[in-house]
Amino acid sequence: MSQPAHQFEYKYLPSINSPADLRALPESILRKVCDETREFMVDTITKVGGHFGAGLGMVELTVALHYVFNTPEDKIVLDTGHQSYPHKILTGRRDQLHTIRQRNGLSGFLKRTESEYDVFGAGHASTSISAALGIATARDFTGKDFNVVSVIGDGAMTGGLAYEAMNNCGVQKRRMIVILNDNNMSIAPNVWALSNYFSELFATPTLQKARSRVWDLAGKLDDFGDRLRILAQRLEGGVKAVITPGMLFEALGFRYFGPINGHQVGNLVKMLRSVKEMSGPVLLHVITQKGKGYLHAENDKQFLHAIGKIDKITGKSTATVPEKPLPPTYQKVFGDAMTELCDKDSRIVAITAAMPDGTGLDILANSHPERVIDVGIAEGHAVTFAAGLATEGVIPVCAIYSSFLQRAFDHIIHDCAIQHLHVVFALDRAGLVGSDGATHHGVLDLGYLRLIQGMTVMAPKDEQELRNMLFSAIYSYTSGPVALRYPRGNAEGSMLQPMTAIPYGKGEILRKGKDIAIIAVGNMVCKSLAVAELLADDDIEAEVINARFIKPLDTELLDDICSRFGRVITVEDGQIQGGFGSAVAEYIADKHIRPELLIHGIGDKFIDHGTQEELWRELRLDAEGIANTVREFIGLPETVQSFV
Amino acid sequence: MSQPAHQFEYKYLPSINSPADLRALPESILRKVCDETREFMVDTITKVGGHFGAGLGMVELTVALHYVFNTPEDKIVLDTGHQSYPHKILTGRRDQLHTIRQRNGLSGFLKRTESEYDVFGAGHASTSISAALGIATARDFTGKDFNVVSVIGDGAMTGGLAYEAMNNCGVQKRRMIVILNDNNMSIAPNVWALSNYFSELFATPTLQKARSRVWDLAGKLDDFGDRLRILAQRLEGGVKAVITPGMLFEALGFRYFGPINGHQVGNLVKMLRSVKEMSGPVLLHVITQKGKGYLHAENDKQFLHAIGKIDKITGKSTATVPEKPLPPTYQKVFGDAMTELCDKDSRIVAITAAMPDGTGLDILANSHPERVIDVGIAEGHAVTFAAGLATEGVIPVCAIYSSFLQRAFDHIIHDCAIQHLHVVFALDRAGLVGSDGATHHGVLDLGYLRLIQGMTVMAPKDEQELRNMLFSAIYSYTSGPVALRYPRGNAEGSMLQPMTAIPYGKGEILRKGKDIAIIAVGNMVCKSLAVAELLADDDIEAEVINARFIKPLDTELLDDICSRFGRVITVEDGQIQGGFGSAVAEYIADKHIRPELLIHGIGDKFIDHGTQEELWRELRLDAEGIANTVREFIGLPETVQSFV
Repeated sequence: MSQPAHQFEYKYLPSINSPADLRALPESILRKVCDETREFMVDTITKVGGHFGAGLGMVELTVALHYVFNTPEDKIVLDTGHQSYPHKILTGRRDQLHTIRQRNGLSGFLKRTESEYDVFGAGHASTSISAALGIATARDFTGKDFNVVSVIGDGAMTGGLAYEAMNNCGVQKRRMIVILNDNNMSIAPNVWALSNYFSELFATPTLQKARSRVWDLAGKLDDFGDRLRILAQRLEGGVKAVITPGMLFEALGFRYFGPINGHQVGNLVKMLRSVKEMSGPVLLHVITQKGKGYLHAENDKQFLHAIGKIDKITGKSTATVPEKPLPPTYQKVFGDAMTELCDKDSRIVAITAAMPDGTGLDILANSHPERVIDVGIAEGHAVTFAAGLATEGVIPVCAIYSSFLQRAFDHIIHDCAIQHLHVVFALDRAGLVGSDGATHHGVLDLGYLRLIQGMTVMAPKDEQELRNMLFSAIYSYTSGPVALRYPRGNAEGSMLQPMTAIPYGKGEILRKGKDIAIIAVGNMVCKSLAVAELLADDDIEAEVINARFIKPLDTELLDDICSRFGRVITVEDGQIQGGFGSAVAEYIADKHIRPELLIHGIGDKFIDHGTQEELWRELRLDAEGIANTVREFIGLPETVQSFV
Repeated sequence: MSQPAHQFEYKYLPSINSPADLRALPESILRKVCDETREFMVDTITKVGGHFGAGLGMVELTVALHYVFNTPEDKIVLDTGHQSYPHKILTGRRDQLHTIRQRNGLSGFLKRTESEYDVFGAGHASTSISAALGIATARDFTGKDFNVVSVIGDGAMTGGLAYEAMNNCGVQKRRMIVILNDNNMSIAPNVWALSNYFSELFATPTLQKARSRVWDLAGKLDDFGDRLRILAQRLEGGVKAVITPGMLFEALGFRYFGPINGHQVGNLVKMLRSVKEMSGPVLLHVITQKGKGYLHAENDKQFLHAIGKIDKITGKSTATVPEKPLPPTYQKVFGDAMTELCDKDSRIVAITAAMPDGTGLDILANSHPERVIDVGIAEGHAVTFAAGLATEGVIPVCAIYSSFLQRAFDHIIHDCAIQHLHVVFALDRAGLVGSDGATHHGVLDLGYLRLIQGMTVMAPKDEQELRNMLFSAIYSYTSGPVALRYPRGNAEGSMLQPMTAIPYGKGEILRKGKDIAIIAVGNMVCKSLAVAELLADDDIEAEVINARFIKPLDTELLDDICSRFGRVITVEDGQIQGGFGSAVAEYIADKHIRPELLIHGIGDKFIDHGTQEELWRELRLDAEGIANTVREFIGLPETVQSFV
């Protein structure tokens, strides 16, 4: 369909500069608009890379939504921005789509400051029903009259927030529509209990016929007793439960409709028009296919979430191959290390919240599938479940992205730390993550983890130290929860060796100096060694310390440094407020002899997307930037920024 | 039943020192054991105060559970400790029950270190199914064989964590039992969509009969097409959905049984024996009555959650009345202030997560019921819902206890702060809360809130400042989320005046001094004024500053203080790590001239229960303790601890 000849002709899309333009077209044209939108998305994203499968699956639904609803007066709240690319194409951002996820370009997610059509920003999953209910409530409070539609994937439906919101919708009974975009595959293969139920039912040819037969049958129920007659009136919900997957939603107070095919735009328009007029909360179940219309994406799982630059026809990567091979990613090192550990120890279990591939746990799953438990997009449950495992002597390793683990903050405190349970947290995507931007940067973890009483928090300087920290977390620091945080992407290229334990709470001096001490955290350590080289050119002898531990602090080492240096700088890929440097400042605050301490990190603001390198440079967290920060600190002029 | 003559005779209870003793009794005795357990609980708790209604409702279920299951080998995971008093009585803690919630006495919740029968600690709600699934998973991994039972109230069922866990149970299909203890009233009147559904159905006399009729009917469905025959096999779930409230649970993969009467101990034993033998996840729905068996609790809502000391017969308070009236509680001041504001401004909406009474919002609900939205035990949804409201110009005020708001940490960041949405957070129960102990102390909020980019965080020194801060948060600081945190209990007795705005980010000097500066936060401010008096006796002239703002810091004021004092102490009712003093340490760290800074607060440990006064004294956060800390800091000997 949209895998066409090389000369695809865009007939309608170029003149659609807003949904109003779309709504001015006759309904018979919508199929063409869908084809052109899909083609445009394939054309653009294969060139620049980006999220792919979810958007391709959403083309018809997006067109139908903007066609039926009077956006932006009517509010369409999309859950998690992956699915938003067609929405961006149709809401005036077509010509910027090629800038997506690039510095100063379009966001890969929804963003209120980017467009009035982006009603509610969403990088984390499961928020749309809550937000939509808030908007519907505000509408009713202010006596306005518009429609509110939330579009949520089946993956996001595993999140407890979606349930809390649906339950509250059933209580508040406000007019709003929830569209369940069911592609039966969130980022990882689906882990929703309902999904089996769904999959079997869809594509039943006799479904519509069967429904009417059961309806007739329901009419016969009035030979029951008085009480049952009342119950029989409730049969609409019950009957639907028998032959549709609406059970859950009817139980929560929604009127359920579906499932319907999400790629027949005419039908979608008809169905949306009919649910639009209803009062109270309505759930419309739409079945879509991730990657729909792009052959390589339909057939190959790896195309479904996000792609790099690829050849549109062959599906092969067109990214330039680096001259010498890059070091392995931290994710691969982690997955390999977990495999090595699980080979020898049956007590270890890995937990992921819908990110087995992203975290590297797919590697472990290859050899030990039973040791990788994917709980779905449910970080809170992942952590409390892990705490339950730990009570029975199992050693759970929760591998969760740093910014997503924010969802489980209380669960770490209340279910792990208070009970001194030995749960290991592997915080992937710590620090600046790059093109996913503000919602995904893992820059608060040092702060929110080191608050927690009795917690151990570490960051490895390279891949071998990641291995050693994982080993130590599992075998040596067993009296409570332990976290290690490491960045997205390629490691430093250290030689991999057998895992050994790191002395608890001990940092290490990597280079001696006398003019200034640089205490660096995680991925800033190797950069700081480069900084010392740069500073040496100015005859500044910098000492470089690998902090290793954010909590507990290596107070002995700090005492030594404070006694030898008048100026100390801490460097971390994270928020200054409450972070590692803050911990050092706390520690030295009441010492009689204490150096001037410069805390270098990210200031009190949200950082947009861009490559990690671009962001580090802008924030002076590359070697040159750190060196210049040191020069300023000790009163030397900055050198001209050169690209190292 | 258990409202008997004055001379109640305990025949069996005194010899039940563990569940094994209970299991040695014949089944015919269990009714008596229940009566004695209930009587003992009423006798004890009316004398010493404590959670009341939930425990009274759980007597028969607790007896039946320990009778049928081989505890502690079989694991019973209770959700939220309120319901645990009968469990404590039967598991060897009967003779300590009178110490409950008192310093060094029994905890009011479950606690692993207190008893091997307390399988998983729980002060926050909705954790039991996650924990139980973790335990069941560990059992299967380690090849053990025991039963796992989670007991969760209908109130806790509104929490998303319960749903995440149930969904995951449906996927993992492990053998475990979830008991829904449905008393149709969590702490506040129930706000679960399903609860209406439940209430209507229970006590239907024809229920069992009706079920069999529908079963017969189901048998006739095989005149449908081939596809429908397969569907018909699924009718067990569907039919249950029609005539029982099992819809939600069946949809999530549980086998549902119930509802059954939770006060007929014989029936409970029979039912538990039968579900005990089943494979896969089973949900047993038990209907109980909160306060069951104690007349005053059955009839009066205020007895249902927790009581102070009361006369067992009359139900009247026996607490000593203070000689002069105490100042109003912060909760009352907040409720009154919200009412005053809502009287004049229709844009303000208050949100509570099942705590309308605890937060003082019941006062607002009296005059403006439509302005108080109770979303149930669902803090995450409360916050994201509020963010949705804010997008439409409504001004949401989320009143949530400090330690419970930890559940919504990511929602504040991702849904409010990144989008600069104006949501006001009123954090009640900030600081040490007293008898609820470690799970409830709100000692991390200064740390976790000040991390968040662009957040405003305040703490009032007294009730009038609470009013002014609330007013300012609503009208003056509108560019993003704003939090104010204040303690549980009585305020300072300040004269209430019209609300006025506080200059943004500005602290205030309350008393000038020259020897040391005390920068205090919230409820530590008035204490610090008393400290200055104590120090004046030693000829130490202390300056006392009311910080007011934790974020942003009043840097102008700090610069002034740093230029005038060689020693500064910060005082906060919260965790030292990452808190207010930490923020000050960060700020002054790289100044050329900077005082010695002592950060006084709570160290890196969990604090057990006790009265607020006891805990403040132990932690040196009463006036005498702070004064001694200052004396030590400046090198003077401590004075003998006297009771002020």
